[in-house]
Amino acid sequence: MVASGWRFLVGRPLRAREVSREQITPVEGLPALSLDALTSVAYGPEAIIVVLAAAGAAALHLVLPVTIAIVALLAVLVFSYRQVIDAYPGGGGAYAVCRANFGPRVSLLAAAALVVDYTLTVAVSIAAGVGALTSAFPGLSPATVPICLGFLAVITVLNLRGLGDAARAFVLPTMVFVVGLLAIIAVGLIHPLALHAPQPGRSLLATHGLEAVSVLLVLKAFSAGCSALTGVEAIANGVPLFKQPRAVRAKQTELLLGGILGTMLAGLAVLARRWQIGPRSGQTVLSQVMGLAIGRHWAYYVMSLTITLVLALAANTSFGGLPVLASLLARDNYLPRLFSLRDDRQVFAVGIWALAILSGALLVAVGGNTLALIPLYAIGVFTGFTLSQAGLVIHWSRTRPPRWRHRAIVNGIGAAVTAVATMVFLVTKFTAGAWVVVLAIPALIGLFVRIHVYYDRSQRALGVGRVPGKPHARRTMVVVPVTGVSRLTQHAIAEALSISQRVVAVHVVVEDAGQSAGRDRELQQQWARWNPGVPLRVLHTEFASVTRPIVAFIDELHERHDDQIVVLVPVVRPDRLRDNLLYNHLDLVLAAALGTRTDVVVARAPMSLHLEDAARTSRPVNRYQLGKDELG
Amino acid sequence: MVASGWRFLVGRPLRAREVSREQITPVEGLPALSLDALTSVAYGPEAIIVVLAAAGAAALHLVLPVTIAIVALLAVLVFSYRQVIDAYPGGGGAYAVCRANFGPRVSLLAAAALVVDYTLTVAVSIAAGVGALTSAFPGLSPATVPICLGFLAVITVLNLRGLGDAARAFVLPTMVFVVGLLAIIAVGLIHPLALHAPQPGRSLLATHGLEAVSVLLVLKAFSAGCSALTGVEAIANGVPLFKQPRAVRAKQTELLLGGILGTMLAGLAVLARRWQIGPRSGQTVLSQVMGLAIGRHWAYYVMSLTITLVLALAANTSFGGLPVLASLLARDNYLPRLFSLRDDRQVFAVGIWALAILSGALLVAVGGNTLALIPLYAIGVFTGFTLSQAGLVIHWSRTRPPRWRHRAIVNGIGAAVTAVATMVFLVTKFTAGAWVVVLAIPALIGLFVRIHVYYDRSQRALGVGRVPGKPHARRTMVVVPVTGVSRLTQHAIAEALSISQRVVAVHVVVEDAGQSAGRDRELQQQWARWNPGVPLRVLHTEFASVTRPIVAFIDELHERHDDQIVVLVPVVRPDRLRDNLLYNHLDLVLAAALGTRTDVVVARAPMSLHLEDAARTSRPVNRYQLGKDELG
Repeated sequence: MVASGWRFLVGRPLRAREVSREQITPVEGLPALSLDALTSVAYGPEAIIVVLAAAGAAALHLVLPVTIAIVALLAVLVFSYRQVIDAYPGGGGAYAVCRANFGPRVSLLAAAALVVDYTLTVAVSIAAGVGALTSAFPGLSPATVPICLGFLAVITVLNLRGLGDAARAFVLPTMVFVVGLLAIIAVGLIHPLALHAPQPGRSLLATHGLEAVSVLLVLKAFSAGCSALTGVEAIANGVPLFKQPRAVRAKQTELLLGGILGTMLAGLAVLARRWQIGPRSGQTVLSQVMGLAIGRHWAYYVMSLTITLVLALAANTSFGGLPVLASLLARDNYLPRLFSLRDDRQVFAVGIWALAILSGALLVAVGGNTLALIPLYAIGVFTGFTLSQAGLVIHWSRTRPPRWRHRAIVNGIGAAVTAVATMVFLVTKFTAGAWVVVLAIPALIGLFVRIHVYYDRSQRALGVGRVPGKPHARRTMVVVPVTGVSRLTQHAIAEALSISQRVVAVHVVVEDAGQSAGRDRELQQQWARWNPGVPLRVLHTEFASVTRPIVAFIDELHERHDDQIVVLVPVVRPDRLRDNLLYNHLDLVLAAALGTRTDVVVARAPMSLHLEDAARTSRPVNRYQLGKDELG
Repeated sequence: MVASGWRFLVGRPLRAREVSREQITPVEGLPALSLDALTSVAYGPEAIIVVLAAAGAAALHLVLPVTIAIVALLAVLVFSYRQVIDAYPGGGGAYAVCRANFGPRVSLLAAAALVVDYTLTVAVSIAAGVGALTSAFPGLSPATVPICLGFLAVITVLNLRGLGDAARAFVLPTMVFVVGLLAIIAVGLIHPLALHAPQPGRSLLATHGLEAVSVLLVLKAFSAGCSALTGVEAIANGVPLFKQPRAVRAKQTELLLGGILGTMLAGLAVLARRWQIGPRSGQTVLSQVMGLAIGRHWAYYVMSLTITLVLALAANTSFGGLPVLASLLARDNYLPRLFSLRDDRQVFAVGIWALAILSGALLVAVGGNTLALIPLYAIGVFTGFTLSQAGLVIHWSRTRPPRWRHRAIVNGIGAAVTAVATMVFLVTKFTAGAWVVVLAIPALIGLFVRIHVYYDRSQRALGVGRVPGKPHARRTMVVVPVTGVSRLTQHAIAEALSISQRVVAVHVVVEDAGQSAGRDRELQQQWARWNPGVPLRVLHTEFASVTRPIVAFIDELHERHDDQIVVLVPVVRPDRLRDNLLYNHLDLVLAAALGTRTDVVVARAPMSLHLEDAARTSRPVNRYQLGKDELG
């Protein structure tokens, strides 16, 4: 039941070659890998205006130049990441670039920054989307955390089905969002068409400048606005998810993203300047622009709901990136190898689960209110930007393709600007929570290194790659724990005799108030009557544990001779899963007790039990016999 | 770490004969098995007065006669249960009596009633105790549920250590409670010593009778007051917990309980009558009596806290009763046999855990507010009273000892009176929640019967008690899944060759974008170079699952010949438990995939891995080789 329900949710197993059909085109690439970047128009321009507004209305004219600088940086990043795709089509983004150009240590810094970024992106995006929803419908507020986890569960299942499915599900809302917002900006720019609806809320603009218009203010506005650029790296990180020719399609997607995002940012800045938009209570900047351009009718509400949805779906960007990154780290022995295994649907399921659990825990820990985390996750992203562009500078100076100097200069400028932005982020937000990131990144690097060291040692201890000695057979002795004489015992003894001629059955008598002597003798008589050709050894114990005397008996055998010992445990496999509750499962208890022993092979001899035939006869069953086979 | 911490909590394993030292004396029997009954003085008299107060002050004079009737019934019950102990010293109380005198069907009714009663008792007692605590310290109210679960956890651990320990821990508060309350009653009765402190709160007495003084009112008051009698059956149910001579000690305890409880009830009724005590806001009847007798100084607060504590500890009564009852049911095949197994501490751990989980869930479900459940759990108890006394009537008429007629008449009266009380409970409380009990009891009986039918059938299918055919050996073939050539592979192949000369190694190649052909060839070359004397079969798969081709290969082997097939999975056992996360655990995956197959024996060949020696050398490891042994 559970298994088939799960199969229905995630779909049937896929062949490796079927997966190429599951891979994505540029149009699907936008919803699958770029929603994080596209939706940042919902908070990027806002962040700039909030910073500038602290210096009064006069400072608001700086919105346009700051945004132009950000769009220029966007162009540099898009250009840079198109080069990354060319140079490292295996995905992994900053991690791959750093690995090739700076060596393993710096690449681990990039990887750790990306892991933090991806986890925060999921939590922040879902919380922002649900926050927008609960603002529209305040009655849902008490259920914020369950709604967040519900969104997370849906996104997780879609990704476990395969990103192709997920991307397809996201195409429609993404298109509505992109086309709608571009149309709104166009309407706004063609002045006479705009409706100029009255604005609700009250202006939060400082009436006299609290802060002077200074270089620092401009820097703060610039770095705050840079949160609009988070996510542009995701396409380069997820190249292997694209259809062949992968690099070409990924580069097309990157260009498409850059064009749309740049147009939106510039357009919003022009409109904000023209309409003198400042911060307002209960109204985002985007909502003000939309209201002024198309009024507050059905189209406004459709767009508001769409923004809610795409913000929540932006979490999907991380699900495109982290599992691929984790699989690369696992292949390089920096994470457990399970992260590098594809599951039945050919996705890196362990990475998907890990991301879902981490971000779910984060959502629960902050109660679904992660708006304060928005500036933090830019730190991880910009660390990656800086590292990958610095790496490309080295790449160009090493490979020296045509026009390499020109390319290196552009990447160098990008590296310098993003490095400054990272530092400004860190300094201005350190006490507001950036210290968490500062602690998490070295902790992750430490974990990666420890895992790597362990794998190195274990490979050496296992002698991997050397030719081992010849395997030598030993005599084998099979120990079969029995609880009575029945068809189960017959089945297990037969399997034991197939393995070795040296078989011993053991029966444990728990001495309980002296009533056990009778049972003991009766079993020995039954055994003699059956005469299976195998000795029965009765073990007495004063403790209640059945495993203890069996372990002691095995130790005794080891002392007496050098045979390999196999413990073969008879197990009943009932027809229905729930009937397992009615058996004592000595196999599990013994396996746990012998689990740390490397001198014993523990095996199960399962026998199926069909009750249909037996159900006909209704002969009363002897009470004593009922109690006998309890270890089945 | 976890295991040793747990061992510290519950203590070292005990031998069966050490347990007799763990068993309890009459003085320990009171705290261990009778707190439920003793603490009912905190709500029994209250229940009578609340019912009578509905008919106005004039009806309060009925408190004394009603209480005298209840004390008389208590005497009948104590007498009756002393006879139960004599007749059925194996414990189980009503269940054992019904089983012997009415047959299995009625005994299951008694068992189901007892299970409901025990579970409700735990929840009600803990909630009542914590309720008293939070009344005294209102700041703790928001943490009601966690405090309830904390108490439950402490009681559970004490019982997992063994009831002896638990009883010892409860002796002091029980003594303070009993001696203190008897002293208070004595002070109150010796009139001139009483302090007559003024009463806080306001009277809730109806100023003009809302209800007429009628037979129904007296019946309702009587049955409400009968909640003071819940728990007197626990001693008879838990006879096996007493030191030898068990029956004698248990009968002493029963008499002790009857004497103390009767004295307390009668004394409280006399004082309540004398001081015209009615219901009062925020003040229990017991608290009013205490205030009037000894004033509201330190002694009053010590007693209040003690009452809180013993109410919470009264839950322990159920932990003394339910696991024993469940073990009897399990021995008669009405519950899974795990309930009949003693654990390392010689306690019925499964029963203890089941009770803790059920009552914990109940506490969480009702938010720690189970005061409304108090009248309900009397239903279960009184059903048991009626059944066991009716059973004794049959017992006497069958065995006919001296004065059997006299005995049968007393038991018959007890049965009739408790039957009436049960009916009154049911009718007056049906809509207030008694319907839950009415549903739960048949559901439990249904479960018992289904389990019994299953065991009957499975025993017949297993042919228990018949002499089975001779076991016949077959040829065995061992399949060893390998991922490369290493010391682990050598170890596993050696163990396989010890089991059979017919061994085949299998290697699964997951075809992933056509890069696997090289690895495949390289492994075959390495195998040829090693030449372990065992063929290597390479299995290709287009799916990502490694188990699928192995299962298909086993099916192929089954088609080709009749050999018994053993799948021997190489497993690395690292030194540290957490290092297991770094291995892929093909053994678990394969065991799960082959778990339902009864034609394959799955075995593990564990090899310990010590890294100390390898850590010295620091030769860099070949990247390709690192990826090879990933299935370890």
